Formats: sequence, structure tokens, C-alpha cells
Amino acid sequence: MKKPHVVCLGGGTGQFMVLSGLKNQDVELSSVVSIADNGGSTGILRDELGVLPPGDIRQCLVALATGDKLLRQLFTYRFHEGSLSGHNFGNLFLSVLEKVTGDPISAVQAAQRILNVKGTVIPASAVPANLYAELSNGTVLEGERAVDDKQPDQPAIRRCFLSPTVQANPEALDAIRQADLVVIGPGDLYTSLIPVLLVGGVKETLAARTGKTCYVVNLVTKPGQIQTPQASAFVSVINQYLLPGSLTDVLVNVGVPQEPVLDRYRSVGELFVSDDLGSWQEPQVHRVDCLAAATPEPVQGDSLTRSLIRHDPEKLAAAIIKILHPKT
Amino acid sequence: MKKPHVVCLGGGTGQFMVLSGLKNQDVELSSVVSIADNGGSTGILRDELGVLPPGDIRQCLVALATGDKLLRQLFTYRFHEGSLSGHNFGNLFLSVLEKVTGDPISAVQAAQRILNVKGTVIPASAVPANLYAELSNGTVLEGERAVDDKQPDQPAIRRCFLSPTVQANPEALDAIRQADLVVIGPGDLYTSLIPVLLVGGVKETLAARTGKTCYVVNLVTKPGQIQTPQASAFVSVINQYLLPGSLTDVLVNVGVPQEPVLDRYRSVGELFVSDDLGSWQEPQVHRVDCLAAATPEPVQGDSLTRSLIRHDPEKLAAAIIKILHPKT
Repeated sequence: MKKPHVVCLGGGTGQFMVLSGLKNQDVELSSVVSIADNGGSTGILRDELGVLPPGDIRQCLVALATGDKLLRQLFTYRFHEGSLSGHNFGNLFLSVLEKVTGDPISAVQAAQRILNVKGTVIPASAVPANLYAELSNGTVLEGERAVDDKQPDQPAIRRCFLSPTVQANPEALDAIRQADLVVIGPGDLYTSLIPVLLVGGVKETLAARTGKTCYVVNLVTKPGQIQTPQASAFVSVINQYLLPGSLTDVLVNVGVPQEPVLDRYRSVGELFVSDDLGSWQEPQVHRVDCLAAATPEPVQGDSLTRSLIRHDPEKLAAAIIKILHPKT
Repeated sequence: MKKPHVVCLGGGTGQFMVLSGLKNQDVELSSVVSIADNGGSTGILRDELGVLPPGDIRQCLVALATGDKLLRQLFTYRFHEGSLSGHNFGNLFLSVLEKVTGDPISAVQAAQRILNVKGTVIPASAVPANLYAELSNGTVLEGERAVDDKQPDQPAIRRCFLSPTVQANPEALDAIRQADLVVIGPGDLYTSLIPVLLVGGVKETLAARTGKTCYVVNLVTKPGQIQTPQASAFVSVINQYLLPGSLTDVLVNVGVPQEPVLDRYRSVGELFVSDDLGSWQEPQVHRVDCLAAATPEPVQGDSLTRSLIRHDPEKLAAAIIKILHPKT
């Protein structure tokens, strides 16, 4: 029997999480990854070498790697000394692969082979783009990093767009077209998920297919971006970047973190998102405790300690499989 | 039948050449590599990250790699743009392997596995050292790069030493002990060969064994270092860094480059080395045309175009095999 095909859209640590979980499930797995990052090591390589921003792609590759553990360690290694300080070696690896192979798609395919990746990592576009956010007063923020840094006292985001307007990598559209289930998220809406939805052809292809499309609702608000701690507010923003009726399913967490953890988050303006989706029928709401046991240890060496309220990869994967096979 | 074991000592492009040739011969092959380089990308990584200088090791690994061609290309890739300009990616790769594995010997072993290396690349010591050259007026030059840059108008080199005084990697001594033939060179005497001979235990182990030890005489002089264009001058310097009687064989080229090529070399003070070894019996002299057809194309992407008078890897390997099996 043909394995069901699950396609995850996004970037960042959220995408790392969901792929890490789904990797252990019996599905054909693809990850369509954002190409709009412009911060840190990724931003420097993108600017100086003219390569596709490697950071998000690298995290997906590591999540799905099944080969030599040492290669996974190399791909997550970050320099802390000297002139290379701040660079991630996996980012350098991908950038050099792109230079040597001559194009970013071949580079990612080569990295998949080297890391013996389970599934497929597909850059949303073969061309990098910048994310722009127009605020309600007309100000335009340029670059994913600027959008990420937006402060709560700035006006709300009215709309986001990419420039240059880039067309989707045909392989990304093929994967979406053939998917039994497309999972959007988890991840920061404006800096991980929406940049993928904005790539030319993605939302049209999502709308035209018959398979399900599920959005995994975020666990906490993000000051300066989405400040209403209700699931409906997040779904509403995602829907702005989809064609009507595209979203068939919503996965919302119903586990509750401990009060001291919630307090710590409140102190930096991050509020726990509650399920206010009531009796929504379309999209269909799936309520599952997807919360990871709060742990202060770093998990992947790369920024996962930033957030202690997070999805558990295995719980999340199990919930996604249940959406894929509702009767089992 | 057990394959004969050939151990090459050296570094730089000379070592790359001889290994590239011997790789296609039916021998067990090891390369004991200099750990004293302090220039360029290698010098920066050594200083900033505290790793074993990767440049010489990297060239040997690439020479012996048999796996994925793409990985060999990665290992020779040099950045030409932005803040990484001048760094070689293979050097970064080895440095990060050392950081992740925690020691340089494990790092090289891991790289051998990843590149599917034929034979073994063995750092002469697990600890980096600096080369010092004391000149005849008492001045001391510090670092391989300074020795390499020594000008013809400076006093002659009286002696070289390493500091700190480092002990040989036991694996290097084992390889030398078991070798049927140890090949010293080809390579720059002061910056590729002598730094290996100076590592604690190497010359004693060379002297104590029963197998042959052959020095491959350089093809041209090096201004500021050895300016006498006679094979005997080169053998004499090598012998200063060996215990008496260690050298059993000398391989001297008898091919002659074309006059215009010789002229070009003369114009920068590099003179073609002639065979003045006459009827030397000990060491035994082997006279072979080992010259590569002069070609202006880069061969390995890494400085091989510097010199057009050079050894041909295959001719050199064939000559070495003949020394190993004099009757065949």
C-alpha cells in the first residue's frame, strides 16, 4: 500500500519539531521550507555569497537526517571563537554545496544524500526573497529580521509581501499537489509560515487540491506580532494568506503548562493561547494535548532553549497521523 | 600475500602529488603529515580555534579520497567573497570535526570515513607546533610562513627546530616502524619535510627500522632556502635531520624541462636541480625521468599552478614501486 504523503510548510524550530516527530511515523514526508530568512549567519551568507538562505533548510535536513550522527553534529555546530564566530557550520556546508553544484536545489539534494535524509527537503523557491511587513500607519518593515524584531508599541501589521516576487520551485508545488495532508506550522506566523504561503503558486496549489490542509495553532503569542491569546486570532491571520476554504483542519493544543512557566512567559509579554474555537465546523478543530514536558535543557544545540512552552514532537506527530487517518 | 606498506612523509602539494600517484598502486598507503603550518586559512583556524593546522592534512585526504566527487570538491573549495574570503572549506570541515570529536586524531579518522579515503592519513603529532629557523647570524625566524618567506639576501638557515617540542602520534611511529618503504618528499624541505622529521620520535624510529627510506630530490631550488642547484645539496640538508645511515635510497629526476620553462624559473631565482650524485652507493641512487608535461592548467584548484616544473604523479609512483620491488 502506498504510504500517505505528508507535506509540512514552514521553517525555524517549529518545523524542526514537527519533522523530528513525523520522521518516526510511517508516512512519506516532505518539508517545503521558507527562503526569506535574512538574519544572523544565514543573512551574512546570503548577502556575501548570494546563496539561498541556508538556516531554515539546514534545520529541516538535520531533523530528517538518519545517517552518521557526527554529520548531524557538524550541521548544528556553531563557531564561538574568532572571525567565524556566530556562523553555523551547516549553513556554510549548504552554501558551499550551492557554490559547487551551481544551484540551490541541487545543493539541497546533495545534502540530503550526504546526511541520508528520510523524506525530502524542498526550498519553497530557488530564488531568495525578502519579507516586507506594511504596518497600519503605512510604515514598511524590510526583512524577516526586522519583522521578527517588531515591538508591541509599533502599529499592527496590515499585510506582508515578498520582494522580489518569487515563483515556487516546481518540486514544491508537486509535493503540495500530491499531499494527502499539508501541515502548516507550528512556527512563527510572520517569519516562518507566511513567507512560504507568499511564494508564487503556493496558495493557489493549496486551494486546488483535494487533500486536507491543517494549521497547527501556536502555543503562545508573540509580542509585536500577534498579541491576542486566542486560537481564532491565529487562524484568522493564516486565512488572510490562503484562498477561501483552503484550511480543512486546525490542530489546537489543550494541554496547560504549569503556572510558574506561564508567569515567566507573561513577564516578557508572551501569553498562552487558549482554545476559543468553540463549535467551529469548518475548518474541523482537533483538540489534543501536544505540550512537551517543560525542560530547561537544550535539545538541538540551536535555540530550542528559547522556549520552554513548546510542542512535543511525538505527541504532535501522533495527532497529525490521527488527522490523516481519522478512523484509526 | 600481504601488500607492501608505503609511508609518505611530508605536506603541501608535493605530498598531494605522490599520494595521488601511489593511490593507484597495489600498496598499503599511509601519509604522515606535517602539523607546523601557520599560514593563510590554516593559520587563522589554528590561532582562533586552537585546532591542529588543517591545510596539509586536508590535501592528503583529498589526494586519497575515493568517495563522492562532490565531497572532494567541497574539501578543495575556497571562499572568494565576503568575510570568509581566503578560507578553504576543507580546512573548516576538519576544524569543526576536531571541535565536535574533541581531538584531532579522531577528527582525521572521521574525515577519512566521510571521504572514503584509500590508505591512512596520520598527523605527525596530535599537538600543533611552530617551526623556527635559526640563521647563521643568530636571528631566529618564527613560524613556517616566515621560513617560507625568507629572502635570498638573508643569512643561510643554520638549523630548524619545533616549539613546543612535540611528541609523535603513536600511530605515526607504528606506521613508520612497519613500513617496507618510507618516502620523504617530494616537498619544500624546510616547510613540508623537515617539520615532520623534527617531531619527537620520528628520526629515531626511522633509524631503528629495517625497511628502506627514500628521499625524493626536489626539482628546483628555493630562493632563500636552498640555492645550490645540485641534488647533493638537498640530500645533505635532509641528512642533517636524520640519524646517520637512515637514508637508504635517493630518487633523482633526470628528465629535463624545456628551455623557456627553465628561463621562467631562472627569472625568479629558481634553478633546475641537476644530478651530481655520481657514483654514490649509500644511499642508493635511482635516476628516473619523473617530470610532468608542463601544463598551465590548475590541477587541483589549490596552488598547483604555482609550479610548472613538477613531478608526474604516475611516473613518481612507478619509480617508487620499482624501489620497493627492485627485481620486478
